[in-house]
Amino acid sequence: MIKHTIILQPSGSRGQVDEGTSVRTAARELGVEIESICAENATCGKCMVLIEEGRFEKYNVDSQQAHLSPVGTEERAYLERRPKLLKSKGWEIGQVRLSCQSKILGDVLINVPEESRGNKQIVRKSASNRPIEIKPAIRKYLVTMAPPNLERPIADWERLAKGLETSMQLVRGVDAKVPRWFDMNIDYQCLRTLSKTLRDAKWSVTVSVWNDKEVIAVQGGYHEESYGAAVDIGSTTVALYLCNLRTGELLAAESEMNPQIVYGEDVMSRIQYAIEYPDGLEKLHKAIISTLNKLLSKAAHEAKIKLNEILEMVLVGNSTMHHVLLNLHPKDLGLAPFVPTIHKSVDIKARELGLHINPSGNIHILPTIASFVGADTSAMILAEEPHKQDENWLLIDVGTNAELVLGNRKRLVCTSTPTGPALEGAHVEYGMRAAPGAMERVHIDEVTLEPKYKVIGIEGWNTDHAEFKGHVKGICGSAIIDAVAELFRAGIVDSRGKFKKTLESRRVREGESGWEYVIAWTEETSIGRDIPITQQDVRQIQLAKAALFTAARTLLKRSNLQNPDKVILAGGFGSFIDKEKAMLIGLIPDCELENVYAVGNAAGDGARIALLNIEKRNEIDAVTRNVERFELPTDPDFQNQFMLATSFPHMSEPFEHIAHLIPNRVVDPMAKNFMR
Amino acid sequence: MIKHTIILQPSGSRGQVDEGTSVRTAARELGVEIESICAENATCGKCMVLIEEGRFEKYNVDSQQAHLSPVGTEERAYLERRPKLLKSKGWEIGQVRLSCQSKILGDVLINVPEESRGNKQIVRKSASNRPIEIKPAIRKYLVTMAPPNLERPIADWERLAKGLETSMQLVRGVDAKVPRWFDMNIDYQCLRTLSKTLRDAKWSVTVSVWNDKEVIAVQGGYHEESYGAAVDIGSTTVALYLCNLRTGELLAAESEMNPQIVYGEDVMSRIQYAIEYPDGLEKLHKAIISTLNKLLSKAAHEAKIKLNEILEMVLVGNSTMHHVLLNLHPKDLGLAPFVPTIHKSVDIKARELGLHINPSGNIHILPTIASFVGADTSAMILAEEPHKQDENWLLIDVGTNAELVLGNRKRLVCTSTPTGPALEGAHVEYGMRAAPGAMERVHIDEVTLEPKYKVIGIEGWNTDHAEFKGHVKGICGSAIIDAVAELFRAGIVDSRGKFKKTLESRRVREGESGWEYVIAWTEETSIGRDIPITQQDVRQIQLAKAALFTAARTLLKRSNLQNPDKVILAGGFGSFIDKEKAMLIGLIPDCELENVYAVGNAAGDGARIALLNIEKRNEIDAVTRNVERFELPTDPDFQNQFMLATSFPHMSEPFEHIAHLIPNRVVDPMAKNFMR
Repeated sequence: MIKHTIILQPSGSRGQVDEGTSVRTAARELGVEIESICAENATCGKCMVLIEEGRFEKYNVDSQQAHLSPVGTEERAYLERRPKLLKSKGWEIGQVRLSCQSKILGDVLINVPEESRGNKQIVRKSASNRPIEIKPAIRKYLVTMAPPNLERPIADWERLAKGLETSMQLVRGVDAKVPRWFDMNIDYQCLRTLSKTLRDAKWSVTVSVWNDKEVIAVQGGYHEESYGAAVDIGSTTVALYLCNLRTGELLAAESEMNPQIVYGEDVMSRIQYAIEYPDGLEKLHKAIISTLNKLLSKAAHEAKIKLNEILEMVLVGNSTMHHVLLNLHPKDLGLAPFVPTIHKSVDIKARELGLHINPSGNIHILPTIASFVGADTSAMILAEEPHKQDENWLLIDVGTNAELVLGNRKRLVCTSTPTGPALEGAHVEYGMRAAPGAMERVHIDEVTLEPKYKVIGIEGWNTDHAEFKGHVKGICGSAIIDAVAELFRAGIVDSRGKFKKTLESRRVREGESGWEYVIAWTEETSIGRDIPITQQDVRQIQLAKAALFTAARTLLKRSNLQNPDKVILAGGFGSFIDKEKAMLIGLIPDCELENVYAVGNAAGDGARIALLNIEKRNEIDAVTRNVERFELPTDPDFQNQFMLATSFPHMSEPFEHIAHLIPNRVVDPMAKNFMR
Repeated sequence: MIKHTIILQPSGSRGQVDEGTSVRTAARELGVEIESICAENATCGKCMVLIEEGRFEKYNVDSQQAHLSPVGTEERAYLERRPKLLKSKGWEIGQVRLSCQSKILGDVLINVPEESRGNKQIVRKSASNRPIEIKPAIRKYLVTMAPPNLERPIADWERLAKGLETSMQLVRGVDAKVPRWFDMNIDYQCLRTLSKTLRDAKWSVTVSVWNDKEVIAVQGGYHEESYGAAVDIGSTTVALYLCNLRTGELLAAESEMNPQIVYGEDVMSRIQYAIEYPDGLEKLHKAIISTLNKLLSKAAHEAKIKLNEILEMVLVGNSTMHHVLLNLHPKDLGLAPFVPTIHKSVDIKARELGLHINPSGNIHILPTIASFVGADTSAMILAEEPHKQDENWLLIDVGTNAELVLGNRKRLVCTSTPTGPALEGAHVEYGMRAAPGAMERVHIDEVTLEPKYKVIGIEGWNTDHAEFKGHVKGICGSAIIDAVAELFRAGIVDSRGKFKKTLESRRVREGESGWEYVIAWTEETSIGRDIPITQQDVRQIQLAKAALFTAARTLLKRSNLQNPDKVILAGGFGSFIDKEKAMLIGLIPDCELENVYAVGNAAGDGARIALLNIEKRNEIDAVTRNVERFELPTDPDFQNQFMLATSFPHMSEPFEHIAHLIPNRVVDPMAKNFMR
């Protein structure tokens, strides 16, 4: 057999292949996947390549010897129908070939453009900036069949399955483990319309296959894109991301308030609601389903696709949201010994949950880890991948409840702790959500004890210009952390959180409910009152940060670690707080500041990853099976630790990285036997 | 390790086993399965054995040396609670042991009673009288778990799955391929009530597992039986068999008219109805679903079980019934090139079809082979097993449409042919269904040309006593075959089916619509008229038998066979006809009479087999995939063959086995080049 050399750019892969091999097959042999969904029918154009050196007949008629087989009828038809596409890419018709159609007859240098490469990836914001490989659960194949006749009256499904086996093999390569036609299945609802679809489409259809084993959609003609939605169901906000499953592209992001909020602000009160009212669970369940359907409609409208074209959803949420979504009673999540109904990920047909994507579509719900460490935490692990690290990473998702995961490739431990709503600006006297008018940054001069601040929606500090006057509505979570840290740094409160009553400042005063520090005078506000930080507010933050810190310390102790190598803050809260101030008040354990990352909605990212890469689903199922769970109250030292942790900064911590900020370092003699 | 000899009766299996091995484990090592569903907890008593030689302490206190470990607390408790059971079997308490609890300490001879043996079998009426091994899709396991606590707050499902893995291994033996707990699944509807069930049952439940992979029911406490229903959906009659899935026992058999009959008498008219009316299919579908639910209720009531305890159904029916059941449009079944939507068997949740068994239960529908060779034929093949024979068997299911299957382990071919309703007594002038008052047997004296007959509901021949007078209502299918055969044998009609007009008998006369033979005079009937067999009736039978015979001959020709080794007649019709007479008129090909079998409702039997033995489902899927289908009209010789086959008996057939019955053998010169 005559052999020729093929070199592929930009990978630089090169090798000898048999004469007559198609460029696509040759590339696969050299480890370069080139896309195709039309089963090498010269229909999809996904496998276009550029010939850098080497010639072929028809367009290069002067060539003495062709290095590639001539352009055939179907290929020419395909290329000549698309002058605009070629022009937009800057490609010329004599240079572009469909790699499935071009057979190698001599040495060639081929450029595989980005859009033709298989194994697509997308890059996300994360602590590791690791790209995500696109391996969706749903793949599409063009199947063209001979119509049935009296000699071969084989049934519609079997006719399709045989064609599909051939297409899958052509697209995936002969080595791929493609199921035999008689082992393939078709979803029942999809089967119901199969006969009509095949006939209306004159026996040429695009088949969507889920997980290499079940046909879930059959569309007449040729269609290349399929769509999926990733959803993060928060107690407060539900966020949906509509993605193109082939390219990974984000087509629409929509969010809505979680309507369950009318039945209770936090998960415990919703669990309570489900326990108290016989139809409580049903109401909670229906509320979230209808919100999901609303989000789906909005996103489909935005992306200009039909709901029926959405073929899969991946959902995450805390264990209570998970249970309510699945219509599982959340009672035992809230009662000792606090166990979920199920950890394992759940796959369920869209129609069974009443979600208005394609009724044959799959709904995948990520695994839960514990009653208060839910599928959102699983998603965070999947997004940040502590289980692939040599270093020990501490992941914290801060909300009303905080979930913490610590460890590396050898061991992961987790816990959760109620932090109360203070860190999100609630239950603080003038606290509010992050919205226009909310104070978001605070600085206090340690000599004059005068503050300056920033407000959402207005540029710069309030001391820079007069625009601020009359605009301050309240204080959001990040500003409360700032304010409390600054009160401590400026020496206004001591390390135990008590206001010093001897300071020379009209801002420090005894208010109606005790001592307080006025951060904005009446004329600066839109509410017609002074806005103070009260002793009670400081106390709320102390309790919240003590809970978080004690949880982190417990995990570190259980793992025999002093400090984490990295701290990763997930959730909206983490994105806005000042890392230095957070460490100053002892919200997070001591760590190099540059190793503290805020990664935004890691749970949403994890949901998207699981949506775009089916292998990640098995990965996170296996990882979560081995995560060790600790219930804090079962730790014998818990109460003692918690009390110690209420101080600023934690008395037993060296806090080397923020030492310069601490005014009067106090080391409490009680701390000697502290946990570390 | 010390070894002892164990001998098991009645199998006679013997071998050496390690001291301390339980009798149940030892038996398994010797290839004798002993039942158990309580995971060796001494709870179910399914594994009781009788000690024939060898002794054990406690009940045989005088023994010098025990050959079996003493009776423990749980075992004693179990045995002493059941004096009635032991008495009813004639067993004594000192002789009976639970084999899972008794450890071998010396040589023993053990009797494993029938009820304790695993691999239960039932024997059916069939051509082969092969017993069916009971291997249901559903198996039950008792799982007792430690309740969750704060140290091990593992979720309910995972707790159950781990316990289930242990139970399955204990019941099935360590070699059995039991899935790991994390690979097991639970049906969504079953998951919804899991937490409550586990707590209400104090963590001791019976788990029903489908196909070794999915939990479909969890019941508090200990339950040993599970139930399933096999259904044969005929165009006219729907028959349901409710079975105990553990023992194979038939608990109830119910039947109803197929309510679709109001939309059309035969399958073609129902297909037409579905085509003509937009809601036609929906009406047909709802009609059969509601009849199935009615039958399920009747059977459950009869067997005194709850519908919820029925965990699986297996359904068969012709391709039209199959499609309508699945709500698949039957249009293309009735239009050339006559293709079903699907051949492969279908598994679908009961709730998806609206069938009122346990909503998590599975509905299995057997594969179709062609538009007019349906899941009922698949079931017939499964019941009769031509695919396991060295001989060539011809299976015929006779109805308005006849399905024929021919072949052996190497090759099976099939076809179908419309035979019209004449063979069932319809479209014959005085034809009626087999019911009291119907003539069912006819004999005509070849000298006097006088008839005698039998009537359903009355003992003996009409010539024997006078009781018959005024009772004859009409002629059922079997009597029409008889009558036509006798008319021919007595020389009243010739081999072309024409009445001879020159006979000296007042019974042979020219009636209103042509020549006829009066089989009952007015005074013998309850309808006040003479009952004749008319020229038209003879013609109807000729057409029907020609269709059937031509179909059989076509299959034989395609298989290069002269004659089948066995002919198996399925369906009610086959059970009542006189085999000799059927051969005499050329309804079936020539064959040793003793090799013609009537097997009754083979389709219903096949459905029961598939219900009771899950391995049979894969078997019939694979067999039907390889059955070759022939459409008769595509055979170039078809018209010619059909015309020839209308004669009595077929002119080209030697019919050696009935030669003595044929009066004036005619060999038509046309027959020389006949197909064989």
